[in-house]
Amino acid sequence: MTETLATELQRRIDLKTKPPGSLGRIEALACQIGLVQGTTMPRMDRCQLTIFAADHGIAAEGVSLFPQEVTRQMVLNFLAGGAAANVFARSVGADLRVVDAGVMGEPFGVEGLIERRIGAGTASFLTGPAMSAEQCAAALEAGRALGADGDWDAVAYGEMGIANTAAAAALGHKLTGVGLDVLTGRGTGLDDPGLAQKRAVLERAAARTGALAPQEALAEYGGFEIAMMAGAMIGAAEAGRVVIVDGFIATSAALAAVRIAPATRAAMVFAHRSEEQGHGALLDALDAAPLLSLNLRLGEGTGALLAWPLIKAAAAMLTEMASFADAGVTGPA
Amino acid sequence: MTETLATELQRRIDLKTKPPGSLGRIEALACQIGLVQGTTMPRMDRCQLTIFAADHGIAAEGVSLFPQEVTRQMVLNFLAGGAAANVFARSVGADLRVVDAGVMGEPFGVEGLIERRIGAGTASFLTGPAMSAEQCAAALEAGRALGADGDWDAVAYGEMGIANTAAAAALGHKLTGVGLDVLTGRGTGLDDPGLAQKRAVLERAAARTGALAPQEALAEYGGFEIAMMAGAMIGAAEAGRVVIVDGFIATSAALAAVRIAPATRAAMVFAHRSEEQGHGALLDALDAAPLLSLNLRLGEGTGALLAWPLIKAAAAMLTEMASFADAGVTGPA
Repeated sequence: MTETLATELQRRIDLKTKPPGSLGRIEALACQIGLVQGTTMPRMDRCQLTIFAADHGIAAEGVSLFPQEVTRQMVLNFLAGGAAANVFARSVGADLRVVDAGVMGEPFGVEGLIERRIGAGTASFLTGPAMSAEQCAAALEAGRALGADGDWDAVAYGEMGIANTAAAAALGHKLTGVGLDVLTGRGTGLDDPGLAQKRAVLERAAARTGALAPQEALAEYGGFEIAMMAGAMIGAAEAGRVVIVDGFIATSAALAAVRIAPATRAAMVFAHRSEEQGHGALLDALDAAPLLSLNLRLGEGTGALLAWPLIKAAAAMLTEMASFADAGVTGPA
Repeated sequence: MTETLATELQRRIDLKTKPPGSLGRIEALACQIGLVQGTTMPRMDRCQLTIFAADHGIAAEGVSLFPQEVTRQMVLNFLAGGAAANVFARSVGADLRVVDAGVMGEPFGVEGLIERRIGAGTASFLTGPAMSAEQCAAALEAGRALGADGDWDAVAYGEMGIANTAAAAALGHKLTGVGLDVLTGRGTGLDDPGLAQKRAVLERAAARTGALAPQEALAEYGGFEIAMMAGAMIGAAEAGRVVIVDGFIATSAALAAVRIAPATRAAMVFAHRSEEQGHGALLDALDAAPLLSLNLRLGEGTGALLAWPLIKAAAAMLTEMASFADAGVTGPA
């Protein structure tokens, strides 16, 4: 069934008025979109970005350049429409939702924010699990419901959480076995001593546990926003949506999602190759080749939003472009 | 003045609510757009693609996989809205114009086509100049007027002309001195013997002349659509627009434009790195790093259209995104 559809998609693309293969990665993307929607005439009209925000106990270990209060401040910035993700979402025509997955302090209690708080920030994973198994399951389930919700054709997931590159590196290390020398990066801009400190903290934290099952690794080293994002990816893929994967932290969530629910991989389009140094290794573990390489390292789903116009254009190629026969154009010799 | 503006643009970008530098190439792009429009609050609302179509005498030498009649057929496909360029233009929200710069045969005489015919196709540059000096000047001037016309913030230029990768390779060779072994590519899909034949034809044609001034090289080896596109780039840059440069053939036109009017370079944003093998060398000659790398090799301005959303988003970042002070967000330590 799927093989037949893949063949039919490729046949239709080859009949379009262009030299065969000349749209390169857009052609492969169009095939993938057709397979996700199960049709040769896919629709890619509506895209939505959900930003999951949460705090991290590991921030207390001095692994980030920004103070932890910035997570909360940025949630308010998202709600006010002033962050990069808001600007890009408007620019590319995507909807935006913001979810409190577990920001430090009290609930916000403000309009427009989706409250799915698992706790007031995770515990520090230097000395014990970031969250309990129950919290992890609750975050996955809340994410899954959000991923299944609505009628968007494509969904992107972004994150905000001071110190979450540390969590993503530790999680990625446990899921792939790739070394923390590779996976530990500068995050928001650590200098060399800061990077060395972050890596030392992560090495100590990783030594705390042996081999872990994917969901165990997520509970031990993940974050509420990372676990909820992984759940959302699973739910969105189950609902037949294209899942646009953003940068380093989103890719650590994607890896967890695929290890928990392997079928999720087929729905994923990898948006961009981040500047964060560990991203390449996580992409390799997912056999993923991102569409863009723009030296981004902001998160929030900003890179995913910039890939949306390519995804939309790929679907339009399949559904709107004339064939040689339609247009009366002579094919290649 | 320009240095002051560049400094002011960078200062504003650094105050936005994001880690400094974290939007990578989008930040550099925003600076360039500000400089092109001479403001810290640039507008990137409207984009237009003009496709220039023309035929090439060199097609008679068997350098392309498609018959020459396809140029004319594709013009009609553009006017009917069925080509890849039409689909992408609609998808990204760009306007589209089609110009007959010199297609073989009679004038089309159809509505919606801009007629700027310099002739009914060029002569074969294997045995003499593709066009006269007067024709080249007329093509440049017609292009310049089209580039200056209208009120678009950004313009992209595409082309259609069977055998025009041969013309672009010969022109690029004369303008840069890079060898035809590097610059001759498969175009629409030549096999190895076809590629060898194309290169042999180009080597013979190139040997016909010595060193040439830029406009002489354009007349000897260019095409009506290439010369008109070069003129349009010059006119659009003079009018303060961002010029989005597409693939191999458009880059050969960009090179001619910059050699004729060096100030044109500052307005150029290079959209993508084409699969056509000579593109990298022409980009290097312009010190250009394209935004996208999607293995495209279609032409028509398709790659340029896919870069437009990035350009639009970069300008929006500058004009719409909150600063740390605006949003009450704490900056980095």
